Amino acid sequence: MRRIRLVIEYDGTNYVGWQTQPNGIAVQQVIEQELKKITGEQIALHASGRTDSGVHALGQVAHFDTNVRMGGDKFAYALNTKLPGDIRIRLSEETSPDFHARFTAKRKWYRYTIYQGDHARAFLRNTALHVHGTLDLAAMQTAAQAVVGVHDFAGFKAANTKIDNTVREIYRSEWNRDGSLLYYDVEGSGFLYNMVRILVGTMLDIGRGRIDPGAMARALETGARENAGATAPAHGLTLMGVCYNDLDTRTMV
Amino acid sequence: MRRIRLVIEYDGTNYVGWQTQPNGIAVQQVIEQELKKITGEQIALHASGRTDSGVHALGQVAHFDTNVRMGGDKFAYALNTKLPGDIRIRLSEETSPDFHARFTAKRKWYRYTIYQGDHARAFLRNTALHVHGTLDLAAMQTAAQAVVGVHDFAGFKAANTKIDNTVREIYRSEWNRDGSLLYYDVEGSGFLYNMVRILVGTMLDIGRGRIDPGAMARALETGARENAGATAPAHGLTLMGVCYNDLDTRTMV
Repeated sequence: MRRIRLVIEYDGTNYVGWQTQPNGIAVQQVIEQELKKITGEQIALHASGRTDSGVHALGQVAHFDTNVRMGGDKFAYALNTKLPGDIRIRLSEETSPDFHARFTAKRKWYRYTIYQGDHARAFLRNTALHVHGTLDLAAMQTAAQAVVGVHDFAGFKAANTKIDNTVREIYRSEWNRDGSLLYYDVEGSGFLYNMVRILVGTMLDIGRGRIDPGAMARALETGARENAGATAPAHGLTLMGVCYNDLDTRTMV
Repeated sequence: MRRIRLVIEYDGTNYVGWQTQPNGIAVQQVIEQELKKITGEQIALHASGRTDSGVHALGQVAHFDTNVRMGGDKFAYALNTKLPGDIRIRLSEETSPDFHARFTAKRKWYRYTIYQGDHARAFLRNTALHVHGTLDLAAMQTAAQAVVGVHDFAGFKAANTKIDNTVREIYRSEWNRDGSLLYYDVEGSGFLYNMVRILVGTMLDIGRGRIDPGAMARALETGARENAGATAPAHGLTLMGVCYNDLDTRTMV
């Protein structure tokens, strides 16, 4: 048995997310189906983590086991001839049996993109949230800084999520402007379901002056979902890359 | 009667091009239909020029006449609430009756985008041509330079095009690399049907070593379509902007 890992880019617009669901087509399912055709085996793909419906990835990582004797790099070529154009395998390679896309991930980088302007842009419609009007970026930056470090993010997960440990470490949390685009970059040991989108929703409320910048620290302290803001729309979010001991897809952007 | 001009961005993927056609939905037709609903008038939209099926625009310009008393800037807001997300009005304003989107255009800028890499990219699938393998960029640059100036582009138009004057002036014609992306930027007084795509197809043949760099100058001299290369795929091409005496959408990129 050999273990193969994939680096995967996908436009999440037309999918219910990474994980196979009863209510639509998932990225995982599409790739597993093609792997079954290529290998003749029932393949189970394990990703670094799920992404929600509409969320994108530039450097998602997943692994699977197979008995097929085929060069590790050949899986990418074989898959890309079969997959729809909105899912691309950027790299495939044989890896150690100790590698696990989820459990050996050290660090993940997510980016949320906002376009500020009077009118939305056609080419950003699926990848950036359009915000009309001004945002207090300094206040949003203050709130972003409060997220760095080890915190209990109980207040920043989807209300219906059952999970024991809601403590995560955030290494980087910052806003950067590039013309009319605003990027929120956050890197951490891991993220709860909807966590980045709730962080962004809270900072958008702060940026619009609906709540004060200190609200972020209070929401972290109290752990109450109602102290955080709304969940920002999925389409602005992209999983940029995942870092392992021997692979860092953050550099493939 | 008032004359209104629009600056329009569109993702051409799902359209048969700018101009209304019997065989599918055109960008012009979609905007005219919404203008009819807004104004109650039969509106004829005149663009700086057509774009082919699958070709995109960031700064297409079009004008129309109306009797409706509505602030010129309001048309953009009204249209954007109705139009599909892959067509956006970036600006609307009242203009002089002397302005004509096609006849007063002084200069147009087109960009053709190539992605070079082992595997195509999901997010570039509709906007860049994927080229696997190396390209001789120096040879392509030499060919691009040969295009600058006043030339008869008879050999660089679609074979079925009937047109009297095939002389055009090109002010800028160059390749630039940005990592794995190659941009061909060309600016001129005007362009024949398929001209930019045939220029790019010829330069791709040169870059792949199938024909020598001097082939571009020969194709210009002879005016024979068979001396030029194939027509490059439409989806890599974008109308970036159009320059007028009092409006330059090249700066809106």
